Amino acid sequence: MHPAKIAGLLEALEPGQRTAVWQQVDAGSEARVLAHLNAELVRQLAGDSAEAAHELPEAEAAEHHDAATQVQAVREALAAGKLKRVGKILHHMHPAKVAALLEALPPPERKAAWSMVETDRAGKVLTYLHDEICTALALELEHDDLVASVQRLELDDLVDLIQSLPDEPGRELVHAIGGARRAQLESMLSYPEDSAGGIMNADPIVVRADVKLNTVLRYLRLLENLPAQTDVLMVVDRKGHYQGALRLATMLTAAPEARVAELMDTTLAAIPVNTAAGEVARRFQDLDLLSAPVVDDEGVLLGRITVDDVVDLIREDSDRAVMQMAGLDEEADMFAPVLVSSRRRAVWLGINLVTAFLAAWVIGLFESTLQDLVALAVLMPIVASMGGIAGSQTLTLVIRGLALGQVQKGNTRLLLNREVGVSILNGLLWAAVVALLAVLWFGNWGIGGVIAAAILINLLAAALAGLAIPLLLERMGIDPALAGSVILTTVTDVVGFFAFLGLATVLLI
Amino acid sequence: MHPAKIAGLLEALEPGQRTAVWQQVDAGSEARVLAHLNAELVRQLAGDSAEAAHELPEAEAAEHHDAATQVQAVREALAAGKLKRVGKILHHMHPAKVAALLEALPPPERKAAWSMVETDRAGKVLTYLHDEICTALALELEHDDLVASVQRLELDDLVDLIQSLPDEPGRELVHAIGGARRAQLESMLSYPEDSAGGIMNADPIVVRADVKLNTVLRYLRLLENLPAQTDVLMVVDRKGHYQGALRLATMLTAAPEARVAELMDTTLAAIPVNTAAGEVARRFQDLDLLSAPVVDDEGVLLGRITVDDVVDLIREDSDRAVMQMAGLDEEADMFAPVLVSSRRRAVWLGINLVTAFLAAWVIGLFESTLQDLVALAVLMPIVASMGGIAGSQTLTLVIRGLALGQVQKGNTRLLLNREVGVSILNGLLWAAVVALLAVLWFGNWGIGGVIAAAILINLLAAALAGLAIPLLLERMGIDPALAGSVILTTVTDVVGFFAFLGLATVLLI
Repeated sequence: MHPAKIAGLLEALEPGQRTAVWQQVDAGSEARVLAHLNAELVRQLAGDSAEAAHELPEAEAAEHHDAATQVQAVREALAAGKLKRVGKILHHMHPAKVAALLEALPPPERKAAWSMVETDRAGKVLTYLHDEICTALALELEHDDLVASVQRLELDDLVDLIQSLPDEPGRELVHAIGGARRAQLESMLSYPEDSAGGIMNADPIVVRADVKLNTVLRYLRLLENLPAQTDVLMVVDRKGHYQGALRLATMLTAAPEARVAELMDTTLAAIPVNTAAGEVARRFQDLDLLSAPVVDDEGVLLGRITVDDVVDLIREDSDRAVMQMAGLDEEADMFAPVLVSSRRRAVWLGINLVTAFLAAWVIGLFESTLQDLVALAVLMPIVASMGGIAGSQTLTLVIRGLALGQVQKGNTRLLLNREVGVSILNGLLWAAVVALLAVLWFGNWGIGGVIAAAILINLLAAALAGLAIPLLLERMGIDPALAGSVILTTVTDVVGFFAFLGLATVLLI
Repeated sequence: MHPAKIAGLLEALEPGQRTAVWQQVDAGSEARVLAHLNAELVRQLAGDSAEAAHELPEAEAAEHHDAATQVQAVREALAAGKLKRVGKILHHMHPAKVAALLEALPPPERKAAWSMVETDRAGKVLTYLHDEICTALALELEHDDLVASVQRLELDDLVDLIQSLPDEPGRELVHAIGGARRAQLESMLSYPEDSAGGIMNADPIVVRADVKLNTVLRYLRLLENLPAQTDVLMVVDRKGHYQGALRLATMLTAAPEARVAELMDTTLAAIPVNTAAGEVARRFQDLDLLSAPVVDDEGVLLGRITVDDVVDLIREDSDRAVMQMAGLDEEADMFAPVLVSSRRRAVWLGINLVTAFLAAWVIGLFESTLQDLVALAVLMPIVASMGGIAGSQTLTLVIRGLALGQVQKGNTRLLLNREVGVSILNGLLWAAVVALLAVLWFGNWGIGGVIAAAILINLLAAALAGLAIPLLLERMGIDPALAGSVILTTVTDVVGFFAFLGLATVLLI
């Protein structure tokens, strides 16, 4: 479009639309368009751009020194309709930071800011976003832009992205990828997300064992670039079976006439493609690996896993562990519509309500006792609460022990003895303290005795439940970290109220 | 000692001591000693060794297929006094697995098993242990053995070990390290554990920018071995200032006549030595780094951080987050003496007791109300519990948002609106459900109205507290993950009981 035509268009538009169109004018043509506009509009529109140019160093400084104000800066720019300024702030940020910033914006502002991310960086930004937001923003792009934005992504990142998209756009994206990459992509998509196959990359450089190092070096010079995160080349036989790894470090220090067979490291074991992701992460951590080969059942090399993906995996696991304890989904958008968030969280509240009513039902059994001795109502939450805390300590310890392999069949008995021992000691201590305070408060020795006994019983029950619940859930194939704490609270509430009010009914009424 | 003398000694000892001495006989001399013993003892002692030799393939198989039974196998062998068998099981395990197994044993058995770990592997095993156990087992070794066992450790691992030891043995260990390593060690020990300086390794290979790649390659061939986890060489000037990184991959693909200055990657930014460990981890994760240079204030290269240490860091952080929510120390020994564990856990129970008594005190304010309407006592835990769950959802979301940079000054207002919105929607929903159930249960419309209002109020308070508490704690420099949930529970308990019983007093009595 000719600059004069653009200028005409700009003058004809309403202020809101005018700003939107102006954002689309590229920096090179701005001056020529401005030449055709009236002074008022020039001041207004050029102001936006000039300001953006002017504030660049500031934006850069902000990245290093005060990331905390970036959200504010972007939101203010968005509110003022200065999209170009937003684009320039984003342009100077690392894709990971852009992702964090987008996640900190509410959906409408996020959409506006997202439209200012350059297409060739958009793909990388998507890989850093949590699933829900990633999906929404990917679908926000035109099909062609989406395809263009993912061209330079590593295949494992692309796989993640496609897996987070709905079926239809996901398939379209696969179809838009060309040639050899497409075949690799489809093979990678056929493995479960949380298996070695799901996190591997199909890009290893392979060499044969019987060639000389010299030949390999010549081959590498022809390649010019090695894939990112390459620390070893994979050595395979004629049929593609993995035989060992040739370290870059070895290639630099060894004699060029040596054969690969003499130089390769055969201790780097291949990971079967069906290995669970958690097991892969543990292996990387234990063996300090940078990358590892992935093979199929026959030992044929399929790809490699790199440590950067393992780091992401560990971080996500950690995130999930904390979030699911509160019944939250770690991939969900913090700024999802209120109605959506409410519905999600309602589930957890509903589950908790069942356990709360169970506890209330137990209390209801002793209504007449409470009527006779209302002090019991005052003290009963203490019994339940102490049990809950003590139980959660045992539960947390056992869940972690199971994950680290510290808790095994061979030592659960021992652990039981210990936990019971700890709960008796703490039970005696806190039973005495609470009993003393209760007697001082209500001047009733009977209440003191009953609450002491109830606390001791509940702490014992808490230890037993804290140990038994995760072991049982694990055997049933349920993640103990997910359901463990709700079940535990139910047990300690029910036992606590029942023991306290039951003993009081028998002994005091 | 002559085999005949050993045999004489063995015969003279009691069975328990005899087994202990037999464990010290090396495999080569066993046959000659046995030749001097009577048939009874031969059967008994040789049985142990033969069994150990015989069960090797089994032990190996166990490592791969059924790690869950190893603890049991080792404990049975220990119980039977078959230390050699233990030694052989351990010999075939990776140091990380040995560490996990040691942690799964109670202290006396752990000590026995530890004595069977070869000295040259002991150092590596120590690096995989949690602090408390690491310290105990390191002090278990003779000074000379400890020194010998750490000779081949990387310096950063050695620094961790020394930092976990008490002052005196730690100093002795530093003094036992010789020459250049000692100087590096002392400089590394001078940085805080949780800073870039504390996790760096002082072993980077440095080159000058003005030499040719050819020269560098010749230098590397002289070195023969590069330090583990080397993906780049560091380029420094004459005064040691960091200038850029020379990737191994580049060295393999570039023309040998090129100068380092043309080949080096200047985008790999150096990390200041005082950077917090968490910030280092985030940078590695965002930039997919394998290693990064560490510099002092003047930009002089001090060392490098490798991704394996960052992986450990992230894993430990994740562990700590989960453990501290239950008031547990993630470095503590699961099998510490019962008295020690009880004392540690008592602190958390004591803190909780204060909040429980606060809640009880609030209930106590309404004793006469409860007397008049005992149904209130039955229902009141429901109000407190719903508030606690809803609050923990907001709290968890905000704590994570702060860690990821999703929650910033620029959007807390927005977040507040959202959380209040969610709590009103969920409040209305669950208030209606609970009120309905309460009316059905007690046939009293007043109670239904009061509990509905109380739940709505408590869910609102929970949202406000869940947002405000972590923001305030963060500003006060306290880790919100540590104290957040106790304070939140206190708020939701107090508000819940006060709102429910207070409204009932005003409206129903």
